[in-house]
Amino acid sequence: MILRIPLGRRVAAEALGTGLLALALIGSGLRAAALSTDGGVQLLATTLASVCALGVLIALLAPVSGAHLNPLVTLGLWWHGRGTAQALPAGEAVWYAAAQLTGAVGGALLADLMFGHGALGTARQTHTGAAEWTGEVVATAVLLLVVLGLTRAGQQRLAPVAVAGWITAGIWATASGCFANPALTLGRALSNGYTGIAPGSVPGFAAAQLVGAVLGLGLVRLLFGPARPGVAAGA
Amino acid sequence: MILRIPLGRRVAAEALGTGLLALALIGSGLRAAALSTDGGVQLLATTLASVCALGVLIALLAPVSGAHLNPLVTLGLWWHGRGTAQALPAGEAVWYAAAQLTGAVGGALLADLMFGHGALGTARQTHTGAAEWTGEVVATAVLLLVVLGLTRAGQQRLAPVAVAGWITAGIWATASGCFANPALTLGRALSNGYTGIAPGSVPGFAAAQLVGAVLGLGLVRLLFGPARPGVAAGA
Amino acid sequence: MILRIPLGRRVAAEALGTGLLALALIGSGLRAAALSTDGGVQLLATTLASVCALGVLIALLAPVSGAHLNPLVTLGLWWHGRGTAQALPAGEAVWYAAAQLTGAVGGALLADLMFGHGALGTARQTHTGAAEWTGEVVATAVLLLVVLGLTRAGQQRLAPVAVAGWITAGIWATASGCFANPALTLGRALSNGYTGIAPGSVPGFAAAQLVGAVLGLGLVRLLFGPARPGVAAGA
Amino acid sequence: MILRIPLGRRVAAEALGTGLLALALIGSGLRAAALSTDGGVQLLATTLASVCALGVLIALLAPVSGAHLNPLVTLGLWWHGRGTAQALPAGEAVWYAAAQLTGAVGGALLADLMFGHGALGTARQTHTGAAEWTGEVVATAVLLLVVLGLTRAGQQRLAPVAVAGWITAGIWATASGCFANPALTLGRALSNGYTGIAPGSVPGFAAAQLVGAVLGLGLVRLLFGPARPGVAAGA
Repeated sequence: MILRIPLGRRVAAEALGTGLLALALIGSGLRAAALSTDGGVQLLATTLASVCALGVLIALLAPVSGAHLNPLVTLGLWWHGRGTAQALPAGEAVWYAAAQLTGAVGGALLADLMFGHGALGTARQTHTGAAEWTGEVVATAVLLLVVLGLTRAGQQRLAPVAVAGWITAGIWATASGCFANPALTLGRALSNGYTGIAPGSVPGFAAAQLVGAVLGLGLVRLLFGPARPGVAAGA
Repeated sequence: MILRIPLGRRVAAEALGTGLLALALIGSGLRAAALSTDGGVQLLATTLASVCALGVLIALLAPVSGAHLNPLVTLGLWWHGRGTAQALPAGEAVWYAAAQLTGAVGGALLADLMFGHGALGTARQTHTGAAEWTGEVVATAVLLLVVLGLTRAGQQRLAPVAVAGWITAGIWATASGCFANPALTLGRALSNGYTGIAPGSVPGFAAAQLVGAVLGLGLVRLLFGPARPGVAAGA
Repeated sequence: MILRIPLGRRVAAEALGTGLLALALIGSGLRAAALSTDGGVQLLATTLASVCALGVLIALLAPVSGAHLNPLVTLGLWWHGRGTAQALPAGEAVWYAAAQLTGAVGGALLADLMFGHGALGTARQTHTGAAEWTGEVVATAVLLLVVLGLTRAGQQRLAPVAVAGWITAGIWATASGCFANPALTLGRALSNGYTGIAPGSVPGFAAAQLVGAVLGLGLVRLLFGPARPGVAAGA
Repeated sequence: MILRIPLGRRVAAEALGTGLLALALIGSGLRAAALSTDGGVQLLATTLASVCALGVLIALLAPVSGAHLNPLVTLGLWWHGRGTAQALPAGEAVWYAAAQLTGAVGGALLADLMFGHGALGTARQTHTGAAEWTGEVVATAVLLLVVLGLTRAGQQRLAPVAVAGWITAGIWATASGCFANPALTLGRALSNGYTGIAPGSVPGFAAAQLVGAVLGLGLVRLLFGPARPGVAAGA
């Protein structure tokens, strides 16, 4: 039971993990944009590096903190598990989210420093409009469905590969590019490069991600039925 | 035993899963064609996104509906399991197929809307002739062999990776590009983009896929021997 | 014990499997050469399609025939298992090799027909010289080391991924491109396309592969120690 | 317990494994640079071939020597396990490191000979400065965290995929390209090609890697808590 692990270690894992994820995403985007002249190759490389980091970090940190690495995953697991013995207390969920946001900012800072972009700027790529918001709704809904659906089916050991697999598909197949994570969205807003998002576009994305998370919880209920007390929520 | 899960939940899983698969395929094709100028990179990206979605969806939905996501897989599993306790009733198989076709149309619609192609058109790429039909026969026969062969060998847990692996190979190595799925073929006919197929080419493809499925059942019989009652068909 | 499976089914599995492997390799090469103008993308796509087919076929057919799909793997397993209860009889090994060679020719024929190259020609690419022969020695030695080493360590379940992984590395890192399989070498000699090898280069490659296989057996002995009776050779 | 395997076999495994890893990295870089004109495709191919080799070699050789293939992994496991029954004796650790360095030189030599670069030269690419050194610190720290963290969580079976996954991410997302291995750094200094590093840049890289390894040990302590005697260090 990971809830017996001291909160400090779990919060450190969430901060470090989300920071390394932001570094992998932003850093690989900067390198890919510098190396290749083909937009498809740039996105292939960024996808590959990001989802490899994501899968490794989930596998490595799941035994420590549950490896949420995403405030909406924390929110979804808190909601799904509330009232059960395995429930993540709301106060700890807030600590998790704060660690994820802090970590993502740190990862963005490290990426910018390593690739010579100076310490934290703000990105200029506008991401807005119904198509991109729809993309974020779909991307986040399926992410929650994957995380909670595997938990409900007792298949959490597949999470590293399955989550990485969905993000791979979502990056290419959703109009928004599958941010699906408010912490990474914040980190990307603070780095002006290939993977950036203008700060003005962040609220719309965050709202769409939240809608997607709620929709994802509904899909879990639809496909896996009502949660049974004492079985749900893992983390 | 997934047959104890209410039919409504299983049908919803088939519709949602096939829809997300169509979205991944069609959406990634539209993005890849927009991003890259190299035909090889375009197909690499579309392959990667599609088979990642396919593998994730099989892993996620197998405990709910069996994750057929393809009318010919449903047909093959129904045929292979008929007369056994685990058999999928014919009436339920029809519901499965209807859900898959409906889901694929929905996924195509969503992809077109997100990428600004307007709501459902019809594709213009002609896919016809002996070479392409042969490709579909081979692609579908091996797909059925993989699904049913793993079932016969008690290795269903390998299905997500193995099915995704064969589709990866088939997309590149068959002259048709390995549609191998009447539901996805319908969805692709309704989206005029990189992954499209002209409606006039659909009947020939569907017929070739059906021939392939029958051939696949024969290959299962050849390599794995006659099914033993009470052991076969899983789903 | 797969040796209890009728020889006919096992031989059919070896022929079909090697044929599909040749089809995946040759077919994907023809498509990649037609689609992309970048030599790196062409080889990436051919590698991806080939090793995905290889991994799937090993996973699918291992419970039937052992999924050798390569006369030198059959030779290595026969040598390694001789004198034990699990030994593949020499007569059956000959059947295996004949099926693999026949299957590879069939797969090459099917690829050529599907991609409009006419029925079986002969390839014109010369592959010769010390560098390429060294490449084949290394490629085949490591292949045998992987197959037999995993068997010795009781890790055969990793073979689909590990063999595919080594071939991926070998295609890029050996000067010969890692044929490492006399059956596939024959098939590639009969198809004049991206993956071809001139018939005059075949004897040198086959000899180098045989040297590599013997070296591989030596490496297994060096790293895993002498085989213990009753434990060795699986297949 | 791998410590019961004769030291000679373990040292041979470390030498051969590190040699094949150097060959995969250097050889694939030479081929990729020759085949493609796009810098992104070149690095994608080199990444793919290298990490496939890395994953296979870890899976294959872990039962023989622990598959360290890296002096800093050996150092980390020695430090982490000191004082426990599973501890690698310091004298054996020295043998391991010597074998890794020797193997890497051999692999570089073989790659150069196969691709016609003549026997061992010295590379000319300068890799120096705070950004690159920071990259090596991060790359090596996370590598040690992955290796030791999985050991601490009893998940060593995930090491082949997880280590390969981190190196994939690190190659793209760190400013140094994620050497993270003094033996491979030496091999790369002796081959003047795509993956080279000028000898004058080696001391800085080695120092940064050592700092990273120490940081990694600290991160393991932070996230996984103090080691419990009799549980730690595997190898």
